[in-house]
Amino acid sequence: MTNSTYEYDALVIGAGHAGIEAALASARLGAKTALLTMSCDTVGAMSCNPAIGGVAKGQIVREIDALGGEMGLVIDENSIQFRMLNLSKGPAMHSPRAQADKKAYQFSMKNRVELQDNLTLRQEVVETLLVENNVIQGIRVRGDAIYHAPAVILTTGTFLQAIMHTGEAKSQGGRAGEGTTGTLSDSLRQLGFELERFKTGTPARINGRTIDYSVVQAQPGDENPVPFSFMNDRITQPQMECFLTETNEAVHEAIRENLHRAPMYSGQINSTGPRYCPSIEDKVVRFADKTSHQIFLEPEGRNTQEVYCNGISTSLPRDVQDQMIHSIRGLEKAEIMRYGYAVEYDFAPPTQLTPTLETKAVQGLYFAGQLNGTTGYEEAAGQGLIAGINAALKLRGDEPFVLDRNQAYLGVLIDDLVTKGVDEPYRMFTSRAEYRLLLRHDNADRRLTPLAAEIGLASADRIARLKKYEVEIDHALEILRTERYHGNSLEDRLRRQDADWSSLCQISPRLAELEISERARDQVCIETKYSGYIRRQLADVEKQAKITQLRIPEALNYKGITQLRIEAREKLDRVRPINLGQASRISGITPADLAVVTMYLKQPR
Amino acid sequence: MTNSTYEYDALVIGAGHAGIEAALASARLGAKTALLTMSCDTVGAMSCNPAIGGVAKGQIVREIDALGGEMGLVIDENSIQFRMLNLSKGPAMHSPRAQADKKAYQFSMKNRVELQDNLTLRQEVVETLLVENNVIQGIRVRGDAIYHAPAVILTTGTFLQAIMHTGEAKSQGGRAGEGTTGTLSDSLRQLGFELERFKTGTPARINGRTIDYSVVQAQPGDENPVPFSFMNDRITQPQMECFLTETNEAVHEAIRENLHRAPMYSGQINSTGPRYCPSIEDKVVRFADKTSHQIFLEPEGRNTQEVYCNGISTSLPRDVQDQMIHSIRGLEKAEIMRYGYAVEYDFAPPTQLTPTLETKAVQGLYFAGQLNGTTGYEEAAGQGLIAGINAALKLRGDEPFVLDRNQAYLGVLIDDLVTKGVDEPYRMFTSRAEYRLLLRHDNADRRLTPLAAEIGLASADRIARLKKYEVEIDHALEILRTERYHGNSLEDRLRRQDADWSSLCQISPRLAELEISERARDQVCIETKYSGYIRRQLADVEKQAKITQLRIPEALNYKGITQLRIEAREKLDRVRPINLGQASRISGITPADLAVVTMYLKQPR
Repeated sequence: MTNSTYEYDALVIGAGHAGIEAALASARLGAKTALLTMSCDTVGAMSCNPAIGGVAKGQIVREIDALGGEMGLVIDENSIQFRMLNLSKGPAMHSPRAQADKKAYQFSMKNRVELQDNLTLRQEVVETLLVENNVIQGIRVRGDAIYHAPAVILTTGTFLQAIMHTGEAKSQGGRAGEGTTGTLSDSLRQLGFELERFKTGTPARINGRTIDYSVVQAQPGDENPVPFSFMNDRITQPQMECFLTETNEAVHEAIRENLHRAPMYSGQINSTGPRYCPSIEDKVVRFADKTSHQIFLEPEGRNTQEVYCNGISTSLPRDVQDQMIHSIRGLEKAEIMRYGYAVEYDFAPPTQLTPTLETKAVQGLYFAGQLNGTTGYEEAAGQGLIAGINAALKLRGDEPFVLDRNQAYLGVLIDDLVTKGVDEPYRMFTSRAEYRLLLRHDNADRRLTPLAAEIGLASADRIARLKKYEVEIDHALEILRTERYHGNSLEDRLRRQDADWSSLCQISPRLAELEISERARDQVCIETKYSGYIRRQLADVEKQAKITQLRIPEALNYKGITQLRIEAREKLDRVRPINLGQASRISGITPADLAVVTMYLKQPR
Repeated sequence: MTNSTYEYDALVIGAGHAGIEAALASARLGAKTALLTMSCDTVGAMSCNPAIGGVAKGQIVREIDALGGEMGLVIDENSIQFRMLNLSKGPAMHSPRAQADKKAYQFSMKNRVELQDNLTLRQEVVETLLVENNVIQGIRVRGDAIYHAPAVILTTGTFLQAIMHTGEAKSQGGRAGEGTTGTLSDSLRQLGFELERFKTGTPARINGRTIDYSVVQAQPGDENPVPFSFMNDRITQPQMECFLTETNEAVHEAIRENLHRAPMYSGQINSTGPRYCPSIEDKVVRFADKTSHQIFLEPEGRNTQEVYCNGISTSLPRDVQDQMIHSIRGLEKAEIMRYGYAVEYDFAPPTQLTPTLETKAVQGLYFAGQLNGTTGYEEAAGQGLIAGINAALKLRGDEPFVLDRNQAYLGVLIDDLVTKGVDEPYRMFTSRAEYRLLLRHDNADRRLTPLAAEIGLASADRIARLKKYEVEIDHALEILRTERYHGNSLEDRLRRQDADWSSLCQISPRLAELEISERARDQVCIETKYSGYIRRQLADVEKQAKITQLRIPEALNYKGITQLRIEAREKLDRVRPINLGQASRISGITPADLAVVTMYLKQPR
């Protein structure tokens, strides 16, 4: 019995970091969108640590912002500390990171969703996907209501068939203290989707009132915090300190003695966790010779005493957690407010997706976020944005929006996912981006806002700001190129290691008098100082492009290409790459295979 | 298997309005206390409407504040609108009410709990009570850990065996979008506690962006908002508007046509709901001739668009809710964010309690809040405070803290509960308080803070403030009594209808020059103008006291008083009144029965 039917253009299931960006993008691009969440009180919740950004992740946030997404704006508004990481390294490595006021972030995000025209935020528990002839029709929710839509974006995070573990104790649910999703996993399996299991975990959260701050090391933020969003010129709110402490042999001993009770070692959990964000029991086993591991004590907000113990994620039993915490310097009397736990959940191997994040099996159905086997708020939000854009573009009958690996970290992320799949929770690293010198956080707007403007996702204000910024940059570059000093252009001079903007200003009154924003000035310096490397990487891109951009028809019958090795036929058939470049990145596909495909494509038929 | 054991003096189960006050009071009175909640993210959550106070309820908040509780302080800090209700009536009826920023209130409350010394806030799901020889020993929580304590206060709200209804659709849980409690009801039944079922409900919440504010009526707050807490002299934050609209025949028609689908009328719900806060389907049936019912559109906070539709609580199916909402002026295009629902839950008939809120069956076990069959944040918080105080006093070996009906609304509330029990969700009214002229919101501090000071719950700051205030009052009263004008004392003159403080100041320079706070000046005026009525009520109290204060030994063997009617023996045995006054209020106990008991007690034995 159905007691209500609602009609939308696009439905987004789950209002976490992926779902929010998907829904906002879809609504802004003209699709009448509904964002359905199990609880309106957890929209934009930060389930894990209270920070946004970090190495390679900060770049993603900048790209989300450049494309008109929300994450950068909200963290700017609700951050309690900003730090630019890797400043001692080259500009490709500089990565912005901010500590968030968790609840302020969450409720600010909810408010922005509420304010979005064309978007309905509603509390619903989604139970079934409705599909006919491999085309999505909509969904059925608890309470026997149906939502019809030609596009559905699934962003269910860790909530599919989720089981939480703390030592021997298990309970159902994707996040401690909350409800569980219903039967979506069954619905997906019935549609032929493959689901696998991953696990992730969180550490204990403690009451800051019970920390001995006199023996832990304070870590302040940057003196001049750099905003994430291109729309913000500066950060004005006061910053808070974080704190550092570390594990020690007593902690490690307690872990070793109780390893048989750790779900990951007792066999209670079989699924794979994030290798680069391991639990403390994992670290103690894998790095047996290390006598201490750093713990980063992160305040969860301005208006709470809760502190997140970053670095000691664990699913050990609670008595071991108590013992561990109380053996750590500064935490001897710390009270745990929430025990750490691991959560096992279903994910859908992302090779089942096209680069628009639409599923290959069901037209109009998109997957984004942790459901695709990734980890991290930023990776989730980025996928959500791309899925939302593509859902809306397809509804309009427009071309898909696919970013290349040389255009954005988001291009790298999605290409990695849909081409290579994942065998552990995927997180972004700068090393995954072969063109990382082109994909800097500082040029995200110049790279991507013009693309956002083309599809209609950049606001007039953002476009105007970018234009002004580009004019500033051009103007400065022109001065650098044309003015000379002792026979050299200022540009050449700026490339010298001992030169910087202010030293040039001393020799060029025109430069000194130039009205230019700090952001534009920094951009000019980076582009000039690194122009040699950048030019080389651009040349690489061009060379690769000639080969890789050869498109492969979606319906290509690989099984009919008898010259191909059988393994190659199967892999290509499963991934169905959109061009030769993607085909080349499928693991196990050889240059010889690519040559066969190229020949086949160039044959007149 | 138990993997952890924790030792406390007092445990509070549930961190709603009752649990918070219980835990804070207990910790402040020296008991090492743990406050256990299903989710640290819902501590102090306002499950229903976004307001604190109101008729008779505002008085309770003032009493909680006067006793050193937290509710008044937190609403003062996080209110978006203040209104003093019933200002056209006498001072006994004046009732403060404030609209809350729900999330700001909630997280501010959580922070205060976190900051309380001697109090551990922790996320746990409590499964079983541990009792030996009718004495509480502690509890067992999910994950096989045990908390030992000689005092346990249960404040589980609507979460025991809770079922939510929206039309034909049912789901488990005490609040939409959240988890469910485990097996506590079973545990209580096994201990011999009687449990019954009540129901309550909430209306839909809508997105304010979709309201047509041009056709609804704005309701601003008071120009000079009066703080709830004695510790606050004024309210400085800006106030927001609420809005009024109403139902109409189209709405009523939609309800009537679908009554067979309403869980309360279809037989799906059997339990009793709050008569004075009925669902809209109830109102349409019971007041069939009314053509409209008021709807109060309450913003849920400063930083959200969510709006609570106060007045149309419903468990009708969602299609009917859509139809209703869209038939209301101003809401024609309103989008529902959360559908209304009813919730059925177990409560423990409160005649199983003594006036300290300790259970009669299990020593050291206390019940407070909605578990006792009440409704309302204020009633819950008040009970929590009294239970927390008594748990801590008993641990110290001190006398119990029981307020009389002539001392406080809290006295009336608890006496009503434990003496008469409840046959519908109990809410406070001024009419329940026979001495309401003595129990005004304006004199709560003078009535109760001295008692709080005695047991150690009033801060030094509060005591000093009260002292200063009393001195101001005394000083002013002295002037009024001693100064004369045209043969009459100023006091007599102030009693004239046309006189007020400023008219007296015109004739008395001494009064005009008196340094006195607004609060003290108002108090002097009220006490003077109503002194006749107040004196009469005080005389009543004294007369009654002589009769009613005759204490009845706890272990009195009513069954052995053969002169008593059998019905009276049974009722007295069940309630076990602490004095003759309480005995007199048991329904079915006659003056003759009382005479028998009095005689029996006065017999030499």
